[in-house]
Amino acid sequence: MRLHLNENNAGCSPAVLETLRRLGRSEVAFYPDYDTALAAVSGLFGVPVDHLLLTNGMDEGILAAAAAACRDHANGIPEAVGVAPAFDEYEICTTAVGGRMVTVSLGDGFELSAADIRAALTPRTRIVFVANPHNPSGRTVPLDTLRQLACDVSPALMFVDEAYADFMGESLIDPAAFAALPNLVVGRTFSKAYGLAGLRAGVLVAAPDTLAPLRRVVPPYSLNAWAAAALPVAIQDRAYRDWYLEQAAASRALLTEACARLNLPTWPSAANFVLVRVPDAITLVRDLAARGVRVRDRSAEAGCEQCIRVTAGIVDDTRRLIAALEEILCAGR
Amino acid sequence: MRLHLNENNAGCSPAVLETLRRLGRSEVAFYPDYDTALAAVSGLFGVPVDHLLLTNGMDEGILAAAAAACRDHANGIPEAVGVAPAFDEYEICTTAVGGRMVTVSLGDGFELSAADIRAALTPRTRIVFVANPHNPSGRTVPLDTLRQLACDVSPALMFVDEAYADFMGESLIDPAAFAALPNLVVGRTFSKAYGLAGLRAGVLVAAPDTLAPLRRVVPPYSLNAWAAAALPVAIQDRAYRDWYLEQAAASRALLTEACARLNLPTWPSAANFVLVRVPDAITLVRDLAARGVRVRDRSAEAGCEQCIRVTAGIVDDTRRLIAALEEILCAGR
Repeated sequence: MRLHLNENNAGCSPAVLETLRRLGRSEVAFYPDYDTALAAVSGLFGVPVDHLLLTNGMDEGILAAAAAACRDHANGIPEAVGVAPAFDEYEICTTAVGGRMVTVSLGDGFELSAADIRAALTPRTRIVFVANPHNPSGRTVPLDTLRQLACDVSPALMFVDEAYADFMGESLIDPAAFAALPNLVVGRTFSKAYGLAGLRAGVLVAAPDTLAPLRRVVPPYSLNAWAAAALPVAIQDRAYRDWYLEQAAASRALLTEACARLNLPTWPSAANFVLVRVPDAITLVRDLAARGVRVRDRSAEAGCEQCIRVTAGIVDDTRRLIAALEEILCAGR
Repeated sequence: MRLHLNENNAGCSPAVLETLRRLGRSEVAFYPDYDTALAAVSGLFGVPVDHLLLTNGMDEGILAAAAAACRDHANGIPEAVGVAPAFDEYEICTTAVGGRMVTVSLGDGFELSAADIRAALTPRTRIVFVANPHNPSGRTVPLDTLRQLACDVSPALMFVDEAYADFMGESLIDPAAFAALPNLVVGRTFSKAYGLAGLRAGVLVAAPDTLAPLRRVVPPYSLNAWAAAALPVAIQDRAYRDWYLEQAAASRALLTEACARLNLPTWPSAANFVLVRVPDAITLVRDLAARGVRVRDRSAEAGCEQCIRVTAGIVDDTRRLIAALEEILCAGR
């Protein structure tokens, strides 16, 4: 059981697989076209196509934003500001393209302090990364806080990583958002709720002028032809996505309840994962792996002492995880 | 007929399609693993896996090299050196990440002058881009010239784009090359000879330490799972690749001969395309498009006045192209 990367552990929509099985040798050999995929994403988010940049997973969107933001060294080494702990690609991409990552701590409950982020800004700040919901805690940030922060950090880019926003049910993306906040870039992925992680499909949403320098970083045929064919079908199968969102919500509840019974602290999560504090993270990860269950050790990160992050996806997998946890932890008592 | 992007116009190997049709919902939803693909590429090129960085098409490899090379602004804006005309991604990527592109002209026969490239080097030069065979002319550069140039431009990276090297039959890649030339990075793609353009699969080959900063730019799941599954099968079907290489060679000969009959100058090409000087490039591209044949107008580029670039792939398509050319050009006389 793969519960370590927050994939859709039910797999993709069956309609996606049917579509892919109908593709032929030309779709392997010919460069892709994105008109249909862009139209579907435009319809999903209610923003024009010129506000969209399809990316090879959201990882490529993070890279494009970091690279475009850090191309200006006029005031010295450009800086990105983010929180710790966070998804590691913000820092990897920033430093890979010659920038420096500046991080601010979160509270005990992983709450974001907008004041701390403002205090970290310098004349060299080019981009600010915030995830909503936060990873690895699953905690949400009020949308108004993010909108205000976008104003405060301007002219730096405000990159809001909404990889798990489908599970939360709200988003900064709306037709009016980007005219009001020209420095806002929202990153989305179809890896999680839509189950396309293996195909790699993400999108950046921003005002056209804001997107222009990021667009130059992303190669012209970045999504492969099979991802481009799958994306509109995945978006269209709303019932499948909604079913998975319900499974994830039920799994979060089950897991939180089971952890409470086992005296394992958790934090309220709005995503398809839960951060759990355990007696000994490294040992537990190993013991679960021995039972065929992969979870993610996050214990080395700030504020995550002895924590593991587990995917809360389909209920069947969650029940098996809980049984394995009970077996391991109760045997040790 | 798509003769404008130098795709494999026969499509991919049938074995690749069979493999893809056996993949399931998990391969859509789970992040990919690259062990099998890396082993196949390692076997193909005879270099260890630590010399390889799989990329989402070679475009991503160019971006990674440009971004890693241009991260250092200590001496001012970093520079890339290349030739004109050339594949446009060298300049697009260099400027997108904050560098400046410096280009040197080629001779009338698109011959490379190593002396001109050396003369363009400055203390800010971080990378030199050369394609072999050259695009859009198809002209080759002697491997020894490139090896010497790699020495001369050090410590700048020497990026040799071998997108079309399969058709030429020789390569800078050999097990000893990278120890001797630590600044050499060879880019390859499986889009052309192997017919995987729609799936996006490329690779950079270099010494491990040279590759390390480029590896940090490329996101961890950059090739999608379907490309990763296809790649070893495409590499294994050597007969299919060899058949396409023969088709391309026969097409080049047919096309060159037909152009001579039609009084259209061409340049000797070692790739699966031919550059052709025509009376009026824009009109001819339009007239061919009206007959369902897409070719590439290159007339706006240095040294390519009134030139079109046409894919020389499978012989059937080439014969149809020649018939269309004859119809258009002879009707106009």
